[in-house]
Amino acid sequence: MPKKGILERLRDGVVVGDGGFVFALEKRGYVKAGPWTPEATVENPDGVRQLHREFLNAGADVMQAFTFYASDDKLENRGNKAQSQYTGEKINKAACDIARQVANEGDALILGGISQTPTYLSGDGKAAVQEIFRKQVKVFVDNKVDFLLCEYFEHIEEMEWAISVCKESGLPVASTMCIGPEGDLHNISTAECGVRMAKAGADIVGINCHFDPPTVLEGIREMKKGLDAAGLKPFLMSQPLAFMTPDCNKQGFIDLPEFPFALESRICTRWDIQKYAREAYEIGVRYIGGCCGFEPYHIRAISEELEKERGKSCNASEKHDKWGEGLRLHTKPWVRARARKDYWENLKPGSGRPLCPSMSEPDAWGVTAGDDILKQKKDVTTDTEINQLITNRNRK
Amino acid sequence: MPKKGILERLRDGVVVGDGGFVFALEKRGYVKAGPWTPEATVENPDGVRQLHREFLNAGADVMQAFTFYASDDKLENRGNKAQSQYTGEKINKAACDIARQVANEGDALILGGISQTPTYLSGDGKAAVQEIFRKQVKVFVDNKVDFLLCEYFEHIEEMEWAISVCKESGLPVASTMCIGPEGDLHNISTAECGVRMAKAGADIVGINCHFDPPTVLEGIREMKKGLDAAGLKPFLMSQPLAFMTPDCNKQGFIDLPEFPFALESRICTRWDIQKYAREAYEIGVRYIGGCCGFEPYHIRAISEELEKERGKSCNASEKHDKWGEGLRLHTKPWVRARARKDYWENLKPGSGRPLCPSMSEPDAWGVTAGDDILKQKKDVTTDTEINQLITNRNRK
Amino acid sequence: MPKKGILERLRDGVVVGDGGFVFALEKRGYVKAGPWTPEATVENPDGVRQLHREFLNAGADVMQAFTFYASDDKLENRGNKAQSQYTGEKINKAACDIARQVANEGDALILGGISQTPTYLSGDGKAAVQEIFRKQVKVFVDNKVDFLLCEYFEHIEEMEWAISVCKESGLPVASTMCIGPEGDLHNISTAECGVRMAKAGADIVGINCHFDPPTVLEGIREMKKGLDAAGLKPFLMSQPLAFMTPDCNKQGFIDLPEFPFALESRICTRWDIQKYAREAYEIGVRYIGGCCGFEPYHIRAISEELEKERGKSCNASEKHDKWGEGLRLHTKPWVRARARKDYWENLKPGSGRPLCPSMSEPDAWGVTAGDDILKQKKDVTTDTEINQLITNRNRK
Amino acid sequence: MPKKGILERLRDGVVVGDGGFVFALEKRGYVKAGPWTPEATVENPDGVRQLHREFLNAGADVMQAFTFYASDDKLENRGNKAQSQYTGEKINKAACDIARQVANEGDALILGGISQTPTYLSGDGKAAVQEIFRKQVKVFVDNKVDFLLCEYFEHIEEMEWAISVCKESGLPVASTMCIGPEGDLHNISTAECGVRMAKAGADIVGINCHFDPPTVLEGIREMKKGLDAAGLKPFLMSQPLAFMTPDCNKQGFIDLPEFPFALESRICTRWDIQKYAREAYEIGVRYIGGCCGFEPYHIRAISEELEKERGKSCNASEKHDKWGEGLRLHTKPWVRARARKDYWENLKPGSGRPLCPSMSEPDAWGVTAGDDILKQKKDVTTDTEINQLITNRNRK
Repeated sequence: MPKKGILERLRDGVVVGDGGFVFALEKRGYVKAGPWTPEATVENPDGVRQLHREFLNAGADVMQAFTFYASDDKLENRGNKAQSQYTGEKINKAACDIARQVANEGDALILGGISQTPTYLSGDGKAAVQEIFRKQVKVFVDNKVDFLLCEYFEHIEEMEWAISVCKESGLPVASTMCIGPEGDLHNISTAECGVRMAKAGADIVGINCHFDPPTVLEGIREMKKGLDAAGLKPFLMSQPLAFMTPDCNKQGFIDLPEFPFALESRICTRWDIQKYAREAYEIGVRYIGGCCGFEPYHIRAISEELEKERGKSCNASEKHDKWGEGLRLHTKPWVRARARKDYWENLKPGSGRPLCPSMSEPDAWGVTAGDDILKQKKDVTTDTEINQLITNRNRK
Repeated sequence: MPKKGILERLRDGVVVGDGGFVFALEKRGYVKAGPWTPEATVENPDGVRQLHREFLNAGADVMQAFTFYASDDKLENRGNKAQSQYTGEKINKAACDIARQVANEGDALILGGISQTPTYLSGDGKAAVQEIFRKQVKVFVDNKVDFLLCEYFEHIEEMEWAISVCKESGLPVASTMCIGPEGDLHNISTAECGVRMAKAGADIVGINCHFDPPTVLEGIREMKKGLDAAGLKPFLMSQPLAFMTPDCNKQGFIDLPEFPFALESRICTRWDIQKYAREAYEIGVRYIGGCCGFEPYHIRAISEELEKERGKSCNASEKHDKWGEGLRLHTKPWVRARARKDYWENLKPGSGRPLCPSMSEPDAWGVTAGDDILKQKKDVTTDTEINQLITNRNRK
Repeated sequence: MPKKGILERLRDGVVVGDGGFVFALEKRGYVKAGPWTPEATVENPDGVRQLHREFLNAGADVMQAFTFYASDDKLENRGNKAQSQYTGEKINKAACDIARQVANEGDALILGGISQTPTYLSGDGKAAVQEIFRKQVKVFVDNKVDFLLCEYFEHIEEMEWAISVCKESGLPVASTMCIGPEGDLHNISTAECGVRMAKAGADIVGINCHFDPPTVLEGIREMKKGLDAAGLKPFLMSQPLAFMTPDCNKQGFIDLPEFPFALESRICTRWDIQKYAREAYEIGVRYIGGCCGFEPYHIRAISEELEKERGKSCNASEKHDKWGEGLRLHTKPWVRARARKDYWENLKPGSGRPLCPSMSEPDAWGVTAGDDILKQKKDVTTDTEINQLITNRNRK
Repeated sequence: MPKKGILERLRDGVVVGDGGFVFALEKRGYVKAGPWTPEATVENPDGVRQLHREFLNAGADVMQAFTFYASDDKLENRGNKAQSQYTGEKINKAACDIARQVANEGDALILGGISQTPTYLSGDGKAAVQEIFRKQVKVFVDNKVDFLLCEYFEHIEEMEWAISVCKESGLPVASTMCIGPEGDLHNISTAECGVRMAKAGADIVGINCHFDPPTVLEGIREMKKGLDAAGLKPFLMSQPLAFMTPDCNKQGFIDLPEFPFALESRICTRWDIQKYAREAYEIGVRYIGGCCGFEPYHIRAISEELEKERGKSCNASEKHDKWGEGLRLHTKPWVRARARKDYWENLKPGSGRPLCPSMSEPDAWGVTAGDDILKQKKDVTTDTEINQLITNRNRK
C-alpha cells in the first residue's frame, strides 16, 4: 500500500520534520565543520542511519536524505576533496538509500534537498547555477524521493532558479529561505520572498536555519502577511536553529563570534522547543521541524507538544514522561519536586558562565553575492590569506 | 595477542576514558531521565553500540559497559519496571557483550562499573549493600571484563564496601567518588577520601560526575595532597561533567535548578575540554575521561589535546582540524578569519539568553544517607507526595 | 552686560544642559519617589542650590528651575499635600530664585519647564489642560526666566497645547517629548512628532527622559528625518536617562520592573556619556544634556568630550584628568596601568550580580490617555486598590 | 549638656555610621580620583558641609571629619600638590570644623580617622610611620573630636602601630581593616587580626571598605570567632562598600578592572543595604555604616531597617515611605502595584548591559608591602612608567 503523500498529510494535519544532520554528526565525529559536506553517507553509513532512526523514533514524519551542500561545486571548494574522492552523485545516491531504508521502518516519507551554491555567490549567473541544481535533482528523481526541498537560500533570486529546476520533476516542492524578518541579503522583504517562492511554484514555503525559533516565526508571520495580501495559500514550513540568537544581525548565526565551535550555551532546551512548536502551530505552520542544533530530543519535544493534534505519540516518548514527570522516579526528594510542568515552563536557566556576556556582537562585513571577497575557489585558504582576513576583521 | 592491561597502560602513558552514556542516550531517546537505568542494552543494542563506536572513534582507550545504576534494587525503585521486565543480570550481560564487540574493533579494554545504591541511602547496612554489589560483579567477572570501576559514590564508607567486593575478583580496581573539594556527604575531607580508597585497595582513585572540570580537578588536587602525605601512589583518574557548575554546593549538579532538563546553556565547549585535559595531565592524572554531558566530540578534544603525549591521533580527528583550522574551507571570509587557536582560546561565549542569570541558587536541603526523607521505596511517587515535596521546597 | 540668549548660543556652538534633579535629590533625601514633586525648593533650598552649583561647576550652560511636575493638579494628586502646604506658585517662584542665584555665579541662563498633566491623562480636555500650563508659565515670566521648556510629554497633542501656551510669552521655547523611535503613545510617529513641535512654534525640539542615550539618539535621528523632509530647521535637543534601557518597550523605563528603586545596575558610566555626547554632536544636536540619573559627573563628561567644540573647560575638570589620567597618582601600580583612554573605552563592566539577568521584561499594560484605569484622583491609593493592581499585574 | 559618648551609645543600642566621602564627592566634582585626598575641606567647604548634612539627615549618629588619606606623605605622593598648597594640618583642621558644625545641628558625634600610609608600603619602618600618624592625631585632639578611628589598613602590623598612637590621646579608639574573610595581605587570618586589634587597645573593631556587604560580614563573623575564642568583647563595626564584589580576590575592589571609573553597575540598591543592616545587627555589629559608594539614601536604608531597634526615625524618611510605599502616589497603575515589600525584596534587577559579563577577572599581581614595585615616590608617573606597567599587566 503506497504511503500518503506530503501534500495530503499537510492538508489533513501536521507534519513533524527531522532535525539537523551536519551539527549532530560533526559532534559524533562524521562531518567536518568548515566544508560541512555529507560524504559520511559513503564513509560512515551506519552513523548516518542511526541518526535517521533516532529522528524517526522521535516522531519525524519525513527523512531528509543527507545531501546538504552536496553540489559538485561545493564538494571541491577551497580544498575539499569529497568531489574527487566520491563524486556528488555517489554521495547523493547513498543518502537516498539510507533515508529510504529507515523511512520504511516506519511510515515516513523521504525528500531530497538542494541549497545555495558557491557558483551563485561567485556571481556566475543563472545557467551555471541551474546546471548545478539539475545534476542533484536528477539523482533524487532517479532514487524516487517523495518530494523535493529547496532550502538554505539567502537570495530569493537563486531560490527562484532552484524552484524552477525542481518543478521540472513533477514532484511536490517545498522551499525555505535562511532569512529572518528583515528580508533577504539583497534587501527583498521577507513578505515578498514568501510571495515569490509561492509564485515560482513552491507548494510549501517558509524559513529554515540561521535564526532561533522566535526569530524564524517572526519571519514566517511576515511571509504570511505577504501571502495573505496576495491571496496565495501555500503550506507553511519552519525549521529554525536550536540555538538562541537574539543578537544576530540579518545574516544570521554564522556571523556570531561563537559560530560554529562555541555555540553550546545557546542550545535550546526541550521546553524552548515545545514553546516553539505550539507557537508555530498557532500561526498556521503545518510542517514543523528543525535545522542545525536540533537533536532527536528536540524533535521529540515537537511530537509531544503536538501529540493531540497529531493523534499519536512517538516511540521515544516511552522514555520521556511529559514535562519532567519521569523525575517522580528520582532518588532525591528535591528532584522529585521538579516533576511538574510549571517548574520547567518558568525556569530561567543559568549559564554557569559568570565571566561571559549574554549577548555577542556579530561580525558585520556587509557583503553579499557579487562582492569580490565572496568569490569562491578550489584551493585551500593560505596563511597569508588568513592573516589578511584577520586584519580586515579587526578594522571593522 | 592479548591486549595490554589497564595498569600497564597507565604506567606507560595516558589513558583516555569514554564519555557519559545516560545523558547522551537520553537525548537520543533510549534512556529515561529520572530512573536513569540502562535497560537500553537489551531494548536498543544498536543505539548503545553506536555510541560506543563514536567514543572509540574519538580516541577512548576503554569501553565502559553501560551498566550504570543497574543494581537490582535501583531497577525496581519507585515504579521502575526494568528489573521485572529484564532483570539486572540480563541488562549487565548485554552491556558487556556490546562493549566487548566494539572494544575489539580497536585496541580498547572493557570495564564494568558499580555505583551507590538505594539500599545504602535507606540505611540498610553493609551486608545488604555488598550483596547488591556482589551480584553485579559476578556478571562482570563471568563476562571477562578487563577491570572494575566503583564510581559515583557520595559516601566513602559505601565506597570502601564496594572496593572490598571488587577486590575479591582479583581484577584491577578503579574508584571515583562524585564529590568536589569539600569532601563527602558525611563531611569526610576529600583528601581523606582519596587515602581511604587507596588503602581499601583501589589501584586507581579519583573523582567523577557532579561537578564541572575545574571543580573536579580542584578535588583531585586535594586527594593528591592527602595521598602524598600518606606516601600512597595510586594512579589518578578524573571524569567530570561536561557542564559548567561554579554555583554548585557540595552535593553537586543534581541540586542545581536546571537539573536534568535545562542544563543546555552550561554545556562545555571543546575548548573548555582541551583546557581540562591539559590541566588534568599537568596535575598528574593519567586516566582522563568524562561523565554526564561528555559527547564524542568532548572525548575527541581530550585525545587531540594530548596527541603528543599519546603518540597517536584518533580517527575522528580526520573530520576535525585542530583549533578550528577546518574553517579555512568555509564559504564566508569572516568565518575563515576564525581558523586559529587564539581566537577560540580567548572567546567568551554569549548565552543568547539575556533574561537568564549566569548562576543559579541550588537546592540545599542538607540531608543525606540516614535521613528519613531519603528512604527509597518501590512504589511510584504519588501526587500527594509531590505536592508535599513542593511545599517543603518552597519553604527552604 | 546682558547674557547671550539661548538661540544665539545654539547658533554659535553647543549648549551643555544640566542633569536630573528628581532622582539626584531623591537619593540625597529631599524628594519623594512616587509623587516626584519639587517642594524641596521651599523645604530645603540649600540642598537644591548645591545641586545647581555642582551642575554649573560641571559645565552646564543652563540652570533649569526645579519645577518638575509642579502643576497644581499634580501637587494634590493621590494624597500629595504639597499644594495645600505650599501652593504651586510658591514652589515655582522659589525654584526660579535659586536657579537665578546660581546662574549668576557663572554665565548660565535659566529656564522654566512644564510637563504632562494628570488632567490630560484623565481626559479633561484642552481648556482645562492649558489653564494648568498658563498658571505655571505666568510664574516663569514674572520671574524673568530666559526661555521656556515643554518637556516630558508622551502625547504630541498635549505637547502642542503646551507650546501654544508658552508662545504667548514671547520667550524662546524648547520642547522635548519622552518618546523613543517608535512614536508617541497614541501611535504618532517620532518623525511626525518632531514636525508638529516645530510647526507649533518650538525653536528647539527633541527628546528627554524615558530611554537610554542610544535609544534617545535613535529617536532624534527619526525626528531629523521628518524635519528635513518638511524643510524645517529647529535646533535639536537631547536629554536622555543616565540608565541603560535596551529592554524597554515604547513606554520607557517606568515600565521596567526596576523602576524606580532598583535601577542602580543600569547607571551609565562617564565613558558611556562621553560616547553619547560625541554621537549627539555628530547627529547635529546642539543642546546636549541629561535627565533622570544624570549626576554632576555625567554632565562633566559631556563638557569634557566637547571641550574643543566649546572652546573651554569646566571647573570640575580640575578634579578630573581626562580618560582616567588621574590614576597616574594612584598608590597601586596595576591601577596606574589603567590611566589611559583605550582601557576605559573598551572595558565591558561586570555587574557583580551573577544571580541577575542582563535584561528585564517590562510591564506592558498597553493603556494610555483616555483609559479608565489612568483616571487620576486626589485620594491616596488604598490597600484594596493596591491588591487589585497586583492581581491585574500578575494576570498580564 | 554634653552629648552621650560613643561607647555609651554602643552599649545602649546601635550607632548608624555615615557614608563614603571620596566617591560621592568625586562624582560631585570636588575630589580627584587617583590621589583621593580631601583638600576639598579647604577648597569647597560648602560641598563637604552639604554631604555631611545629608548623612545627618539620613540618620547618621556620627560625622567623620573628611580627612581620608590626609597624611603628609600621601598629600605629596606621585605629584600631588595638596601638601604644598595647603598642608595636611590645614586640611585636617578644616575637616574637623565642618564636621563639628553639622554634628551640632543634630545630636551627632565627630571623629577623626587615620589610614594606611605610603611610608609603610615603601617599607620605611615603625618610627617613620608612627610619626606620620602622630601629626594627624594631634590635629584631631586639638580640635576636640569625640573619638578616633584607625581605618583602611591592609596589614595588621601597621594597624597596631596606628592604634598605639591613638591610645596616647586617651580618646575611645575604633579600628577597621580593609580585609575580607581571607586575612590581611601578609596572610594573618581575619580572626587573628580581630584579636590583635582588640589586644592593641581598640574599643571597637571591625572591617571597612574593599568588599561588598556580604563579604565584609563574612569577615566580621571570622573576627567574632577569634574574639570569642580569646574571651575578648570589643564592640563590632562594619563599613562595607556599596558595590557588589563577589569576584574580588583578597585585595578587594581596587583590583577589579572596573575600579574606579566603571563601578556603576555594581552599586547596591537601598534594598541590598536594608538586608545588610539586618544581617549586621543579627551578627552583633553595633556600629553599622558604609564606606565608598554609600550615598545618603544608603545610610537612610540602614536607619529605616533598624528604626525599631533605634527607637527613632531619621529626617530623610519624611521623603521615603518604607519599602516603596510612596509609589501609591504614582500616576501609572502598574507602578502603584510595586508599592509593597515583597516586590522589592525579591526583585532581581537587570543590568541593561547584555554585552557585559556578571563578573570580572581581577588583577592579581600578588605583591604587597615590601615589594619593590610598591615603593612610593613624589614625582608624577611618567609615560614610560605607564607603558612598562601595561606590559607587566598583559603578561600576568
